[in-house]
Amino acid sequence: MKRLRDIGEDALVERVLRGFSGEGLAVGPGDDCAVVDEGGPRLRLLKTDAIVEGVHFLPETPASKVGWKAVARVLSDFAAMGGGPERLLVTLAVDPERPVAWVDGLYRGIRKCLGRHGGVLAGGETSSAPSGAVISVAGEGSVARRGLALRSGGQPGDVLAVTGRLGGSIRGRHLDFTPRLAEGRWLGPRVSAMMDLSDGLAKDLPRLATASGCGFELVAEAVPRTRGCSIEAAIGDGEDYELLVAVPPRRWRRLALDWPEDFAPLVAIGRLSEQGGELAGGWDHFQPPGSSKE
Amino acid sequence: MKRLRDIGEDALVERVLRGFSGEGLAVGPGDDCAVVDEGGPRLRLLKTDAIVEGVHFLPETPASKVGWKAVARVLSDFAAMGGGPERLLVTLAVDPERPVAWVDGLYRGIRKCLGRHGGVLAGGETSSAPSGAVISVAGEGSVARRGLALRSGGQPGDVLAVTGRLGGSIRGRHLDFTPRLAEGRWLGPRVSAMMDLSDGLAKDLPRLATASGCGFELVAEAVPRTRGCSIEAAIGDGEDYELLVAVPPRRWRRLALDWPEDFAPLVAIGRLSEQGGELAGGWDHFQPPGSSKE
Repeated sequence: MKRLRDIGEDALVERVLRGFSGEGLAVGPGDDCAVVDEGGPRLRLLKTDAIVEGVHFLPETPASKVGWKAVARVLSDFAAMGGGPERLLVTLAVDPERPVAWVDGLYRGIRKCLGRHGGVLAGGETSSAPSGAVISVAGEGSVARRGLALRSGGQPGDVLAVTGRLGGSIRGRHLDFTPRLAEGRWLGPRVSAMMDLSDGLAKDLPRLATASGCGFELVAEAVPRTRGCSIEAAIGDGEDYELLVAVPPRRWRRLALDWPEDFAPLVAIGRLSEQGGELAGGWDHFQPPGSSKE
Repeated sequence: MKRLRDIGEDALVERVLRGFSGEGLAVGPGDDCAVVDEGGPRLRLLKTDAIVEGVHFLPETPASKVGWKAVARVLSDFAAMGGGPERLLVTLAVDPERPVAWVDGLYRGIRKCLGRHGGVLAGGETSSAPSGAVISVAGEGSVARRGLALRSGGQPGDVLAVTGRLGGSIRGRHLDFTPRLAEGRWLGPRVSAMMDLSDGLAKDLPRLATASGCGFELVAEAVPRTRGCSIEAAIGDGEDYELLVAVPPRRWRRLALDWPEDFAPLVAIGRLSEQGGELAGGWDHFQPPGSSKE
C-alpha cells in the first residue's frame, strides 16, 4: 500500500489537482494564490494555508509567535502575486486541555500581524482536537490588474533574484518574519515571474522554472546567506518567506538601480535557461531529507 | 490555570471575537458566514470550517464520506444565510503514514459534493501532521441582497420552525447529509432569522434567540424526530445540518402553504418570546456533556 511519505508533496499536490477544473478562475491552483477576475481594475486573490504543532511550531513556541506566523505565511503568498491582504478567516483545532491564555496569545499574534500589514479578521471557527493544534488561515487579497505576477511568466535568459537572506530560519526568523508585501507590490508590474520561498530555494526554484517551461542556472555562491549559514543551508533550509523573481535581462539594470533603499536587499542568483538545471535538497512535507524520488 | 474545557465553546468564541473589528464587513463574525457588500445586487459570503479525525469522523470512516462532510458543512452555512457556494479552498493536514488511496477518496468525496451542489474547488494546501487528519474548508458564496437571512432578525412572536428531522445523526447521516441549499434560498427572503443546526437545537436555538434579542418557547413534543430517537436525542444530539428559522406570524400560514413538495418537511416547533426560555443539553466542543456552566 502506497503511503504519502512514499510519493512526496509535489506528487501528492499533482494528484489532488487532477480534480480541479479551474472553472471561473483567471489563475487556478498551482500558483501561490488562485486569481478571480470580475472585470474591475483589481483582481481578487484566494489563498489557504495551515500550520501544525510539531511541524511548523513546537508546543513551547510562544503562542503570539504562532499566530503571527500563521497569518504572515498567507500574507507572503499575497505578496508573491504582487498583491496584499483584504479579509482573513482563521480556523483553530486544538485540544481541550490547552490553556485559555495560549488561545489569547495566538489571537494577539494574529491581530498584531494584521495590524502591521493590513487585512481584516472576517471570521473563524474553533474545534476541539484529540491532541496538538492546527491553525488554518484562509483569506482573500487583491492585486492591481497590471501588477499581477505569476510563477509561469519566466523566459529563458531572465535574471533570477531573491529578496533578503536565506537559510537558518529555524533559529527563529520563521516565527517573526516580515512578509515582503511592499517589495512584492513594487516588483509585481516589473518582473516576468514571482513566488515566495517557503520550502527552500532547492524545492521552490525548480517549481518556478517548471511553471515557466524553463530550466535554470543557479550561482550557488551568489545566494545571499544569513550570517553563519552554509550555502547548503541557504539553499535547502526552507521557511525563508523571501521573494524569488525572474526579470527580463533588458529590465534588470534599471530595476536594480531603482530598488528602494528601505526594501530588503535584492540579489541576482542565476538565470532561467532553455535546459533543466540541477539542484538537490529542500524540504518535503511528506518525505524525510535524502529520500526524494524526484 | 484555566483551560479550554473549563470555559466551553461559546465563551471561547466570545473571547476570540473581542479582537474582530468587523471593519469593511456588512455582517461580521457571529453569524453563519461573514458578509461583504460591494454594492452589487449580490452579497459575498465568507466561511471557514474544519473537521478533525477523532472528533467529527473516525479513522475507519470511508475517506469519501469525510470529504463530503467537510464540504457539505460549509455549504450548509451558505444555505443558512439564504445563499449558495462559489469557490472553495481545502486545506489538509495529515500524517505521512496515511495511504495515498485515503487522500484520493477524500477528494473524490469533495468533488462529489461540489458536483451535486455547485461551487468550484479553487485551491488548497497540504501539510504533514504528527498524527491524525484535519480538513479545513474555507470558501466564498453569494446571496441575493433581498434573500439574505441573519440570526439576528427575529422578533418576539415569530414562529420557530425546522427543516427535516432531528437527532440520531451519529448513526450515519452526519457523513452524507444534504445541505439545505434549495430550502435556504427559498426561505431567505421570507423569514426574519435563519441558521443551520450543527451543535443541536439545545445549543443553537438559544444562539438564534440571543442574536435576535429574544427568549424562546420550545414545544419539545413538536420537534420532528428521526425514527427511533427520543425527544432528548432530537434536541441534544447535534450534527443535524437542518435549518432553523423564525417567521413573522402573519407570514407563517402562507409560507407553510407555499412550501414546495420536493423540499424537506418544514415543521413549527415554538415561538420567539420576550423572555428567556430554558433548555438543557447540546454539544459543546470543549466541554463534556453535563459539565456546561452556561
